Amino acid sequence: MKHALSEASLPRGFRFAATACGLKKTGALDLAVLSSDVTASAAAVFTQNLVVAAPVLISKEHLRASKGRMRAVVVNAGNANCATGEAGHAAAVRTVAEAAKRLGCTPQELETSLAICTTDTRPKTAAASFKMAGKRIHFVGCAKGAGMIHPNMATMLAFVATDAAIAPSLLQKTLRDVTSRTFNAISVDGDTSTNDTLLVLANGEAGAPAIKAGTSAHRAFAAALEEVCRSLALQIVADGEGAQRVIEIEVRGAKTEAAAKRIAETIATSPLVKTAFAGGDPNWGRIFAAAGRSGVKFDTALVDIKMAGIPVLRRGQPLDFNERAASNKLLAVHVPLIVDLHAGKAKARYWTCDFTAEYVRINASYRT
Amino acid sequence: MKHALSEASLPRGFRFAATACGLKKTGALDLAVLSSDVTASAAAVFTQNLVVAAPVLISKEHLRASKGRMRAVVVNAGNANCATGEAGHAAAVRTVAEAAKRLGCTPQELETSLAICTTDTRPKTAAASFKMAGKRIHFVGCAKGAGMIHPNMATMLAFVATDAAIAPSLLQKTLRDVTSRTFNAISVDGDTSTNDTLLVLANGEAGAPAIKAGTSAHRAFAAALEEVCRSLALQIVADGEGAQRVIEIEVRGAKTEAAAKRIAETIATSPLVKTAFAGGDPNWGRIFAAAGRSGVKFDTALVDIKMAGIPVLRRGQPLDFNERAASNKLLAVHVPLIVDLHAGKAKARYWTCDFTAEYVRINASYRT
Repeated sequence: MKHALSEASLPRGFRFAATACGLKKTGALDLAVLSSDVTASAAAVFTQNLVVAAPVLISKEHLRASKGRMRAVVVNAGNANCATGEAGHAAAVRTVAEAAKRLGCTPQELETSLAICTTDTRPKTAAASFKMAGKRIHFVGCAKGAGMIHPNMATMLAFVATDAAIAPSLLQKTLRDVTSRTFNAISVDGDTSTNDTLLVLANGEAGAPAIKAGTSAHRAFAAALEEVCRSLALQIVADGEGAQRVIEIEVRGAKTEAAAKRIAETIATSPLVKTAFAGGDPNWGRIFAAAGRSGVKFDTALVDIKMAGIPVLRRGQPLDFNERAASNKLLAVHVPLIVDLHAGKAKARYWTCDFTAEYVRINASYRT
Repeated sequence: MKHALSEASLPRGFRFAATACGLKKTGALDLAVLSSDVTASAAAVFTQNLVVAAPVLISKEHLRASKGRMRAVVVNAGNANCATGEAGHAAAVRTVAEAAKRLGCTPQELETSLAICTTDTRPKTAAASFKMAGKRIHFVGCAKGAGMIHPNMATMLAFVATDAAIAPSLLQKTLRDVTSRTFNAISVDGDTSTNDTLLVLANGEAGAPAIKAGTSAHRAFAAALEEVCRSLALQIVADGEGAQRVIEIEVRGAKTEAAAKRIAETIATSPLVKTAFAGGDPNWGRIFAAAGRSGVKFDTALVDIKMAGIPVLRRGQPLDFNERAASNKLLAVHVPLIVDLHAGKAKARYWTCDFTAEYVRINASYRT
C-alpha cells in the first residue's frame, strides 16, 4: 500500500509507505516509511525525559553519525519500545537494518521512532509554501499524539518534509527556534513522554539554491516551518484527551520572554485553571493564583486579565462583568486568555486544552 | 456559642469560640476565635504565592511587630479577601481591632486568616502529647481545606495549640522543619492557594520549663508537633476533592533529600499518574516517566519501582506481575509507592490523592 506524495502542492522527491506488520492486533497500519529520493538534510528535537525509548537513542546516534544527512524514517505503532532493555535496542537496530537494505541506503541514514496506541481521534496534517529564486518551496507535516497514554508510555511524533535546500546545521538551529514557540509551547497534561520526536527532512528537490542564514529566504523558510509546526501543535492540543476547547494563553508586558513563557506554562498546566475552562467558568482567581506561584516575580497590583476578550481583572482588582455572558463566550472551541503584567515588553504564547471528566475516564481505565 | 478546650487531653489555657456573623448565606458558623489565656509564643508559615490575600499580609505584619507573641487568632469563612484592594485590607484591620478590644489585647497580638467555601467533607483534628519534667505537654490541631476552590480562591488553614513553653524563634525553626515533611509534602492538585496558613501557638500553661534547642525535650516536642501536622496534612489529602485514596510516595536511594523530594513531588502532581491511581491501574510507566522529567539526574538503568508492595520495575526493566491482583491492591484507601534510585542514601516522602472525574465535576462547575 503506497501513497505517492508527488502532487503539485507537496514537496518533491519524497515517498511514503505504510503497512500492517502485526504489531497492532487489530490489523491496522502499524509500520510506516517516509523516504526521500535523494539524501536530505535532517534536523530533530527529542524528548527531554531522562527515561528514553530505544528508538530515540538510536535516532540520536544516527543523526550524529550521519552529520544530519538522512534518507528515510521508519515509524512503527503498537509498541513504545521503552524500558525494554537489550532486546528492545536489538529490535530497533534490526528494524533499521532491514529497512535500510530494502531502501538501498546505510542504516545511519535512517531514523526510527515508535508510537503506541495513541488516542488520536483524527489525522493531523499541515502544509505551507513560499517562493524563492523563482521556485516554490513546499512543506508538508504530519503528527500524532493526544496525551501520554496507555498502556506504558506513548508519544508525540511529528514529521515535516520540505523540498528546500538547507544545510543540516542551519536546519537544526531554525528547528530549535521554531519548536520553542510551537511544540514546546503546548500542553495537554504537563507530562513529557519518553518518545517525543519532531523530525524535519529537507531534500533540496525544489531546485532552488541553498538557504543561507539571515537572508530573506531564511526568514521565509522559518516562517513557513513555523506555520506548519504551529498548525500541527494546535491540532494536537485540540485533539487532547477529552478536550472540548483550546485555550490560547498570551502573557504580555513581561521583562523577558522566558518569564512570560514560564507564567503562561504554569497557567496552562494548572488543573484548577483547566477544569474551570471545562465548565466555562470565568475563574480569573485561579489564573491569577497560578501566575503567582510560577516563580516569576511581578507586581500583582499591575496585572490585567482578559478572558475571551472580557476584562475581568485590572491593576490587580476584579472588575464587574456579566458572568453568564462570559461563561457563554468561554464555551467556544478557541478561547483567548491574556495576562498583562505591565512590567516590560516581552511576551509569550502557550496553548492548552480544558481538563474534562472524559480525560479522567480515558486515563483511569485499567491497562489490560 | 463557646466550646471550652479545657479537658484533660487538651492543652491548658486555650479557649475557642465560633459564631455565625452572616458571611455565609446559609447561617453556618463563619467566624471563629482561638485565644490563649496568656500571651503565647507564635510561629507561622504562609503561602509562597505572590498573589496574597489581605489577612495573610496583616498576619505577617503582626507576627513581625509582636516578635512572635500572640494572644488570639480570628478566622472567618465565606470570603477569601484576596484581590480586594484597600477595602479588603481595611475590613481585615477592623475585624482584628474589634476582636482585640473584646479580648483585651493589642491588635498586634492577633492573627487573622480567612477561609472560604472549602469543599471539606469532614472536620480535621489531631492531638498528641509527651512528658517532660514530670508534666504532660499537650497538642491539639485543626485544619480545613480540600483543594483550591470556588468561587475565587480558597485555602488551607491549620492551627496547632500547645501548652509547651518555647521561645518564638525556636518554635518558628521547629515549625519550618516539620512543615517541610508534612504540609509541604502533600498535593491535592499542585495549585498553591493565596491564603495557605499554618499557625502554632505555645502558651507554656502546662507548667513545664522552657524547651531548649537540641535537648531531648526539643526532640520530643518536634516529634509530637510532626505527628499532629502529619495527621492533619494526610486528612487534607484524604479529603481532597473527589479523592478515593491516598498515595504515599517514597523516593529512596537519592543523592540528596531535595532530589528525592523533587522526584516524589513530580510524581505526586502528574495528572497521568493520579488518574491511573483513580482506576487502580498499575501503570509504572507513567511513574517512571514522571521521575524522568523531574529535572533530577539519575541512572534509569538502576531504578526499582514497587506499587502497593508489588515489584513492577527492577533495574529499569519491567517485571512480570499479576495485573488483576495488582489492580485490586491499588484500589485500597492507602496505597504505598516506592521508587528506589540506588544512587545514594537520601529519601523523602510525599502524599497525594487520586485524580477522579468527581474532581473535575467539582472544579468545572460554574461559579454562580
